[in-house]
Amino acid sequence: MHKTGRRPPATFDPALTIMQTIDFQTEPSRYRHWRIECDGDVAYLIMDVDQAGGLTEGYELKLNSYDLGVDIELNDAVQRLRFEHPEVRAVVIKSGKDNVFCAGANIRMLGKSTHGHKVNFCKFTNETRLAIEDASENSKQTYVCAINGNAAGGGYELALATDHIMLVDDRRSAVALPETPLLAVLPGTGGLTRVTDKRKVRRDRADVFCSIEEGIRGAKAVEWRLVDEVVPNSKWKETVAARAKEIAARSDRPTNAKGIALTPLDRKIAGDRVSYSHVDVEVDRARGLVTITVRGPAQAVPASVEAAHALGAKFWPLTVARELEDAILHLRANEAAIGVVLLRTDGNAQAVLEHDDFLAKADGDWLMREIRHYLKRVLKRVDVTPRSFIALIEPGSCFAGTLAELAFAADRSLMLVGTREGDNRKPAAITLGQANFGCYPMGNGLTRLATRFLGEPDTISNAKSKIGEPIEGEAAAELGLVTAAYEDFDWDDELRVMLEERTSFSPDAMTGMEANLRFAGPETMETKIFGRLTAWQNWIFQRPNAIGEQGALKLYGSGVSPTFAKERV
Amino acid sequence: MHKTGRRPPATFDPALTIMQTIDFQTEPSRYRHWRIECDGDVAYLIMDVDQAGGLTEGYELKLNSYDLGVDIELNDAVQRLRFEHPEVRAVVIKSGKDNVFCAGANIRMLGKSTHGHKVNFCKFTNETRLAIEDASENSKQTYVCAINGNAAGGGYELALATDHIMLVDDRRSAVALPETPLLAVLPGTGGLTRVTDKRKVRRDRADVFCSIEEGIRGAKAVEWRLVDEVVPNSKWKETVAARAKEIAARSDRPTNAKGIALTPLDRKIAGDRVSYSHVDVEVDRARGLVTITVRGPAQAVPASVEAAHALGAKFWPLTVARELEDAILHLRANEAAIGVVLLRTDGNAQAVLEHDDFLAKADGDWLMREIRHYLKRVLKRVDVTPRSFIALIEPGSCFAGTLAELAFAADRSLMLVGTREGDNRKPAAITLGQANFGCYPMGNGLTRLATRFLGEPDTISNAKSKIGEPIEGEAAAELGLVTAAYEDFDWDDELRVMLEERTSFSPDAMTGMEANLRFAGPETMETKIFGRLTAWQNWIFQRPNAIGEQGALKLYGSGVSPTFAKERV
Repeated sequence: MHKTGRRPPATFDPALTIMQTIDFQTEPSRYRHWRIECDGDVAYLIMDVDQAGGLTEGYELKLNSYDLGVDIELNDAVQRLRFEHPEVRAVVIKSGKDNVFCAGANIRMLGKSTHGHKVNFCKFTNETRLAIEDASENSKQTYVCAINGNAAGGGYELALATDHIMLVDDRRSAVALPETPLLAVLPGTGGLTRVTDKRKVRRDRADVFCSIEEGIRGAKAVEWRLVDEVVPNSKWKETVAARAKEIAARSDRPTNAKGIALTPLDRKIAGDRVSYSHVDVEVDRARGLVTITVRGPAQAVPASVEAAHALGAKFWPLTVARELEDAILHLRANEAAIGVVLLRTDGNAQAVLEHDDFLAKADGDWLMREIRHYLKRVLKRVDVTPRSFIALIEPGSCFAGTLAELAFAADRSLMLVGTREGDNRKPAAITLGQANFGCYPMGNGLTRLATRFLGEPDTISNAKSKIGEPIEGEAAAELGLVTAAYEDFDWDDELRVMLEERTSFSPDAMTGMEANLRFAGPETMETKIFGRLTAWQNWIFQRPNAIGEQGALKLYGSGVSPTFAKERV
Repeated sequence: MHKTGRRPPATFDPALTIMQTIDFQTEPSRYRHWRIECDGDVAYLIMDVDQAGGLTEGYELKLNSYDLGVDIELNDAVQRLRFEHPEVRAVVIKSGKDNVFCAGANIRMLGKSTHGHKVNFCKFTNETRLAIEDASENSKQTYVCAINGNAAGGGYELALATDHIMLVDDRRSAVALPETPLLAVLPGTGGLTRVTDKRKVRRDRADVFCSIEEGIRGAKAVEWRLVDEVVPNSKWKETVAARAKEIAARSDRPTNAKGIALTPLDRKIAGDRVSYSHVDVEVDRARGLVTITVRGPAQAVPASVEAAHALGAKFWPLTVARELEDAILHLRANEAAIGVVLLRTDGNAQAVLEHDDFLAKADGDWLMREIRHYLKRVLKRVDVTPRSFIALIEPGSCFAGTLAELAFAADRSLMLVGTREGDNRKPAAITLGQANFGCYPMGNGLTRLATRFLGEPDTISNAKSKIGEPIEGEAAAELGLVTAAYEDFDWDDELRVMLEERTSFSPDAMTGMEANLRFAGPETMETKIFGRLTAWQNWIFQRPNAIGEQGALKLYGSGVSPTFAKERV
């Protein structure tokens, strides 16, 4: 029997609390925790967590609390609503249980988890919340949260990701961020940042709010801007429905559009290899490396937008987005000891650019728009993945347009100058496309090229003038598009030395270094969540006051009060 | 014998590596590590660290490496150059040793230090680097770094704080950030942030640079924007002098101005009390609280700017800035177990506002300008101090203008409504002044009121219309200037409950929460340093790969290679 979010254990290590291979693929018929109910242009996304459905043993998902498995389903639902339900213009998140909306992340699960799992779980959850905001903003599939019961911690953080928060006024239901007083950790999946930067709650009120276990309800919750409206219990259902209809009416989504099915991925897992139709993942465990190869389109661009719709999940840009995303998530969750990712591409650069152009020209089409935003989100997942990415640009590769973003997302890129002995393919090239100049902003709001060339804006215009031209090794290095270019003669040695060095460094120092160097320039609410908030939370997740034997996270629910070292750091 | 940066041990706890009370006051005649040599409008700030002059035992400050004591002197020198040497328009930082500029923070010291000391040391060092940038930008006392030897780690980070970096081209001297490969920690005193955000080094080059132990020298250092120029050894001295003169010529500082002496603070330490002329610090160890009381001016404003110059360090705004700064630094370094700071003021609000007006009107005067920038920096120290600040606004207080900023810097502010039984003073009030609307930006570039009212810009204009009016309890609460207002009857209970609660929370969670809630809105290079960079560094400072028995920081210099857990987080 296949269990949502689980595959049979790949490895068994008794030292690890989380020992199963985590699968990020699921679909509605397998959901255990969520339901989608569509009512014309409004969808209800109903959280009804199966308390026996935890991803691992040892905890019960009571009171709509969640673990990674619950969030994998939510992520899937958010994604499917965009692709499979173009008719949906407003999505209402609500609870399927009486008197409780959501109690947040499951504490027993957090208490039992490794540091790495906690951090990875929070990262994925943060990405899902941002995907909700991306749907509201960029697909005009606007999220509303209907809080019918207590929304505590991660429960309220989920609400914060929506555009309109409604709270039932039943003299009981409240919103709360009780992490700090109860658990000695932060509301770390966006909570602190969204309270101050999105809801713009006054800082001293935020301080009070984050210190109250029982939270805030009723008119005060509105006055403090924690929710947008409170609704009497007697009028709850119709008011929620009416509000959703009003919000749906403001959407620019097409009428009579037909969704496409996100069919199961074409994925094979065998030993240290995961193969998809256009992506391969090969783990070299001894060297601590993985190679991800992304293949360009095998077919010409469709003859028309209609033909692209007919291809659906088989349309190359969508296929590659889904496969690359799954590969990245798989590595994060299941291959923690692999510190370096080599990024390769294989195929025809021109075909990649033609697909980019096709998407650009059809941007008025809802599906093409979705695909571009999805590619943007997948590339952002790379930006926040704590592994060293090194792009290898070699003959036969197709680092062009959208796929060139992989080279710009990488921490370093190496390019082969000229050809390889015995290889009659053309020299490696990077080919820029329009897509590199605006389609795929990073979390900081800038394109990867703008972030890269923050200190030399002329280089950007220079690069822009080269759109469509294959730029070979030395020219690419000259233009600043790659870190280094080597002849065939030096390639193997240079690469070997670099990889030996990189994999010998402290994994933590690499994570910290990359998290800083990748985000030059402005910060946004999004980068603040992954930078300021996450880094402080990770620090706290290492402190004995939270995770020690006497720490709050360990003792929660035991009846014993935590003992804190009083030193302020 | 008084040793720079040291006082006799106040307490002895064998469990603590750092057990002396750290004193942040010093003056040039007591410097052991720095010399100031003035040459007309150029000052040379010469680093010549006494290797036997460490703040504690157990390490030698070889190769111009530094500890907190060295940085206390640097901070003092930067401060004195601004106040005591108005004639100085360019400051050249250089090394007094041959063949080495500065090896950065002392590793043995870091390896032996408590987590709290490491974090506090980095914070102070960061503030000193920012003070250097503040002097260049706002006093036109522009810093130049003349790197005559290797500048590694914190040594190069010091250079990064200057406006112009010169590197001798002797085929040996290099700049380097070897923290990551050598020590498994980050270049955490601004290095990663300034490389990408100030010098705007391309991210992949920054990645390479931060991975090379030996650093980068010569023309490549210029090409990569790591330094501004390289100068042949043969022309080094005259080129540095010429460049300093050129930069000095561009300053707007006055000619023929006479500096004022930063005379020793009027400070008494007795038991749990530190008393200054206008600031009192009282520690309530049992409750984990400290009360800081700031007194308003005892005298009327001076009759003229000349008279203010004549007062010098006795001029109230300068006195209070120096005393409050020392009190804050003392608490951070020496009272780690005190989690909550009560901020009180005592005096005449009108007198505070008159001093503010005096400073504002005389803003063309170099000294008044210095004092305002200094007050700004002291208030910023409050913003990044990891303690809960609670302002208590009671009858007799003078939260007006500059001192009202203390209430806006606080995490919460409590105001007494009406009067106290048996107290015939007027009801407590906040009085806004022009100073609250632009003089004292936070690190995020916004005023504290703008940060506070991010979500309600109307409130700002409303508040501005009240300038000069005493705003009493309920009106202040209505206007959003205070967190809560209580009558005398409730005051004691409300305060007691709040303090019991606050001091019962995990100190780490409070630090993380405050670091997020205090900085709503935009991030700047400065806030990125204290947010993104510092939080990641603090996380790494807790990770076994750095600080464990097999960690890089512990084993450095032992000849034994560190052993790293390979999991990426």
